[in-house]
Amino acid sequence: MIVVLKNNVQEEKRTQLIEWIESQGLRVHVSTGDYQTVLGLLGNTDRIDMELIASMEIVDTVKRISDPFKRCNRKFHPEDTIVDVAGVKVGHGNFCVIAGPCSVESEEQIKEVARAVKTAGAQMLRGGAFKPRTSPYDFQGLKADGLELLKAAREETGLPIVSECMGVTDLALFEDVDVIQIGARNMQNFELLKAVGRLSKPVLLKRGLANTLKEFLMSAEYIMSEGNDRVILCERGIRTFDDYTRNTLDLAAVSMLRELTHLPIIVDPSHATGIARLVPPMALAATASGADGLIIEVHNDPMHALCDGAQSLKPEEFDRLMRRIGRIRDIISES
Amino acid sequence: MIVVLKNNVQEEKRTQLIEWIESQGLRVHVSTGDYQTVLGLLGNTDRIDMELIASMEIVDTVKRISDPFKRCNRKFHPEDTIVDVAGVKVGHGNFCVIAGPCSVESEEQIKEVARAVKTAGAQMLRGGAFKPRTSPYDFQGLKADGLELLKAAREETGLPIVSECMGVTDLALFEDVDVIQIGARNMQNFELLKAVGRLSKPVLLKRGLANTLKEFLMSAEYIMSEGNDRVILCERGIRTFDDYTRNTLDLAAVSMLRELTHLPIIVDPSHATGIARLVPPMALAATASGADGLIIEVHNDPMHALCDGAQSLKPEEFDRLMRRIGRIRDIISES
Amino acid sequence: MIVVLKNNVQEEKRTQLIEWIESQGLRVHVSTGDYQTVLGLLGNTDRIDMELIASMEIVDTVKRISDPFKRCNRKFHPEDTIVDVAGVKVGHGNFCVIAGPCSVESEEQIKEVARAVKTAGAQMLRGGAFKPRTSPYDFQGLKADGLELLKAAREETGLPIVSECMGVTDLALFEDVDVIQIGARNMQNFELLKAVGRLSKPVLLKRGLANTLKEFLMSAEYIMSEGNDRVILCERGIRTFDDYTRNTLDLAAVSMLRELTHLPIIVDPSHATGIARLVPPMALAATASGADGLIIEVHNDPMHALCDGAQSLKPEEFDRLMRRIGRIRDIISES
Amino acid sequence: MIVVLKNNVQEEKRTQLIEWIESQGLRVHVSTGDYQTVLGLLGNTDRIDMELIASMEIVDTVKRISDPFKRCNRKFHPEDTIVDVAGVKVGHGNFCVIAGPCSVESEEQIKEVARAVKTAGAQMLRGGAFKPRTSPYDFQGLKADGLELLKAAREETGLPIVSECMGVTDLALFEDVDVIQIGARNMQNFELLKAVGRLSKPVLLKRGLANTLKEFLMSAEYIMSEGNDRVILCERGIRTFDDYTRNTLDLAAVSMLRELTHLPIIVDPSHATGIARLVPPMALAATASGADGLIIEVHNDPMHALCDGAQSLKPEEFDRLMRRIGRIRDIISES
Repeated sequence: MIVVLKNNVQEEKRTQLIEWIESQGLRVHVSTGDYQTVLGLLGNTDRIDMELIASMEIVDTVKRISDPFKRCNRKFHPEDTIVDVAGVKVGHGNFCVIAGPCSVESEEQIKEVARAVKTAGAQMLRGGAFKPRTSPYDFQGLKADGLELLKAAREETGLPIVSECMGVTDLALFEDVDVIQIGARNMQNFELLKAVGRLSKPVLLKRGLANTLKEFLMSAEYIMSEGNDRVILCERGIRTFDDYTRNTLDLAAVSMLRELTHLPIIVDPSHATGIARLVPPMALAATASGADGLIIEVHNDPMHALCDGAQSLKPEEFDRLMRRIGRIRDIISES
Repeated sequence: MIVVLKNNVQEEKRTQLIEWIESQGLRVHVSTGDYQTVLGLLGNTDRIDMELIASMEIVDTVKRISDPFKRCNRKFHPEDTIVDVAGVKVGHGNFCVIAGPCSVESEEQIKEVARAVKTAGAQMLRGGAFKPRTSPYDFQGLKADGLELLKAAREETGLPIVSECMGVTDLALFEDVDVIQIGARNMQNFELLKAVGRLSKPVLLKRGLANTLKEFLMSAEYIMSEGNDRVILCERGIRTFDDYTRNTLDLAAVSMLRELTHLPIIVDPSHATGIARLVPPMALAATASGADGLIIEVHNDPMHALCDGAQSLKPEEFDRLMRRIGRIRDIISES
Repeated sequence: MIVVLKNNVQEEKRTQLIEWIESQGLRVHVSTGDYQTVLGLLGNTDRIDMELIASMEIVDTVKRISDPFKRCNRKFHPEDTIVDVAGVKVGHGNFCVIAGPCSVESEEQIKEVARAVKTAGAQMLRGGAFKPRTSPYDFQGLKADGLELLKAAREETGLPIVSECMGVTDLALFEDVDVIQIGARNMQNFELLKAVGRLSKPVLLKRGLANTLKEFLMSAEYIMSEGNDRVILCERGIRTFDDYTRNTLDLAAVSMLRELTHLPIIVDPSHATGIARLVPPMALAATASGADGLIIEVHNDPMHALCDGAQSLKPEEFDRLMRRIGRIRDIISES
Repeated sequence: MIVVLKNNVQEEKRTQLIEWIESQGLRVHVSTGDYQTVLGLLGNTDRIDMELIASMEIVDTVKRISDPFKRCNRKFHPEDTIVDVAGVKVGHGNFCVIAGPCSVESEEQIKEVARAVKTAGAQMLRGGAFKPRTSPYDFQGLKADGLELLKAAREETGLPIVSECMGVTDLALFEDVDVIQIGARNMQNFELLKAVGRLSKPVLLKRGLANTLKEFLMSAEYIMSEGNDRVILCERGIRTFDDYTRNTLDLAAVSMLRELTHLPIIVDPSHATGIARLVPPMALAATASGADGLIIEVHNDPMHALCDGAQSLKPEEFDRLMRRIGRIRDIISES
């Protein structure tokens, strides 16, 4: 951590600050410039309150130079992590498409979609059983019954299943779900992050609507610090002033995350845009940007979907998209 | 709900859409303009997927005209709600200042701060026992012990206590806490909202970092829909591109919320700015804007605070601020 | 335009509002629902102040249903526009890459870069002669001399040249420049928009940092309303809370703009990210998303570039990128 | 400027970087920590491309420690600046309210409003003659005629006049206008900033919709670097995800700017909110936050205003507001 003092600071106040820092168990390296004094803090600065120092009268600015994330940090783990989901690999060149309906609605529906996405080449099946809805009066999902229907679809197709868990109360029901999804609204639900961190099961962690990449990685760190290293990150759009799409897909985040972390990174073009006809171009763009996979909403009958039908592809649209994704992927994976 | 069709829509497709809407249990009022046809949907449109309709080929735009929030809506409950916290009233002209340290650290600390803020005129004591921290390696609060220390401070000063609950697992520990705070990161933790909705205890609900006023009210609605009407809303800054302060305090939200809801609305200038010296001007501004109260961080020794010391006032600064708040409040309450 | 009245509005006030609207030269279609009255305003509503109506006591909400942009609107001009720049076509399947240094620095530099980007396949040469800089103390460009050097490079390579004009004062100097670029900061410099609208020369209009797609199109409309239809739109990143990259590239905007307008749309991955190593993935993503072209910064010696060297590719990196862009483009253009 | 190198950087590459920096005319102070090497750059670092250094392979982070703004910087000019406008003082305790219609519409209108706001206590008259409109088809102002009407109103009331200039072409018409306003959209119209910098006339500079405080100050610096020190800053709301108000008023910016600069800072609650009924609470809040003044839209007949009537107060509302502002101001100025 680097602390830059203001010009013309009194010797006495400077000494006082240095002593206080040392009392926190750190060493201080003082370098005096023509105009300003810079303190370099050495030792474990993780516990130091950077904003407190920044607020001190004699301090101009403070800068943390070491990353607060450790386990998910590529610096300490240069190799790509591959997350294995019942034999399906994600990361380090293993490109994975997860597809399925927003909500599980019936056995017929989920099985039909599962067969369709499998035929088109998807490697996992997604389906919402517990649905986070802004309004308490909206459809909240089939809950436990939905998870059973997902398992039945897995039984028939062999596709591992991915479903969102919204709280610790429901976690026991997910024992036989292959990947637990943590939604954007729960990215900083630390109780839930810690709880899934204690499981030995892959976790698909979605970026929050207004969270920085650092906060995103710190949430992965919450899971990993409890012992679970099988985390898949998912960029799904951020909230901006822009009002044409539901969110703004931040594809540069994929490349930045690639540098910062060894975890696999996938993209959700369906929630990012909220509009079915924007899903194919954004899915192709995400593939070209080097993502490790995609999660896409597919519905056999979007006109009657109970939620988010507006952003779901029909099976034939998904099938056509998959073929183009494959061709883009060929070009990207060569390099 | 109003559905505007595109120009020159085929008669057949129009009929098909109208039939589909009617099959959802609604009536349709068709009005044909010079250029465009507008459908008015009558009946309970809450369950209709607005985005699905918007995504249809023949549809230009869709607009919902009735608010999805009911219980917290001023339209259906024109009178201001007054939340009574152990005799302290909040709302409808009852201005309330909640003060205390970011974290409870020791019996000595919390009691000293409690006495100081009481003397200065605060009506409730705040103190964090469970701390939401971006990093799993940061101090997470004294937890159950912290709540006990808060109760001891209440015992001594008579001030009702406010503390944040971060998840359903810990909720049982809050039985004897006067106001349960739901933090910004948990504003859409629906599991937690429903759980506090089943209690008969005031809830202080903070606005999420990137949530609209409508989403904020829908989260209040989650609590109220379970039976708990004692909700206090708290504006605490939103996330923007701006980088000088931690968040951007959105004071116009106070006035807008006043129109939309009957619930009391308070402001947190400490978390909004993250900088102690900005707290007094923002506290005065919030008071002048017509807020029902403030929640302010006060610490007896900010230099040694374990978290967020940077944004805490010293007792003497708080005392001075309270006197000025009182004078501004006199002017505002006259009108 | 649709005006939704509040519940239980007095008959008298309603009549008064309708008469006022009619006094503005419009007809009003009244439709009375179970709960609310909806007024449909027919005629030329462009001059009506939507926000004034929205602010009236008896009005709940107002919604404009016709687009305020006309000349750039795909509804009134369904065919893609092709902008021809000295024989180089942009739009409707004509993919165009514009490349060159951030700033023109010397004859040697600009000619060397021009030859390199031409060899790699670029169709136009970019180069800044007038530089918009946040600080008045930063390098402001070679100005008129820079334009002369660009022309010399065009002379040698045959590549049409693109350069930014920052104000009407300098416009006369651009007579022999092939494409005038309007930068993001000037997207709503209406004086400049009107002035280039009176020229018969292609204009490359960049989206402002915090402008919606509608505002972007209205700025194109400013140019077109003066008679110049040769406008190329350029998405170059928007400002968000995100702090890892300089801006957030909004690729979904390309697809949305494609629906809204017939004008060609290109993408600037260099300014969007501000980081050279993110330029190739974002250039590939933009190509896959269906953009009509790219504008990319290339410098022969980024270590010594006078501005924005951090985001420039070296010629060999650009060359490699161009080959991959070509392969992605093959896949996209087939569909 | 501080440059932090990555861990385990090769000696050779480090030496190369240091030599390159020295070749730019700077001295380098090397401090070697346990984990990282930190370079302190001494000398005039203003011309150094911080992002270029940040992009180098061996560099971890770069931090500029001296502010790029000089003339407007409080560090170099600790005393508050007072801007004198024809005898009306703004800044350093001189609180100033500027009021008037959005647009000048007729002699009768501007004179009536001028008399009304003078009676209520306003010290200057505002009125738009050149109007920046998103659409080329909207009313663009009475232009030169509007300025003449403003002068007539000044003649009658003695109030100095403030009006927006949108481009250098029109600047000559403003010779006899007391304060030239630079609008938010033109905050980075550097051609215009330099041009008004060459005048000896007060400039009211509005913050751009998505500009940081540093960028805001750099635009003031553009004006001042040309010799004109009479700059009044104006916070008028920023663009965020929030959709209830037109913009989000950022009052903490007033306090932050107070620390960073000696220039007077006023607030525009009318444009910030876009809704007349939110203007009084935001005006009171701005006053309580310590602003040096306000600029408020007042119209004698908002129902017929040609633009922005939705955000204008009626004279009687303004009168009532002024009395409350005065009382809040008394409390603030005592401290």
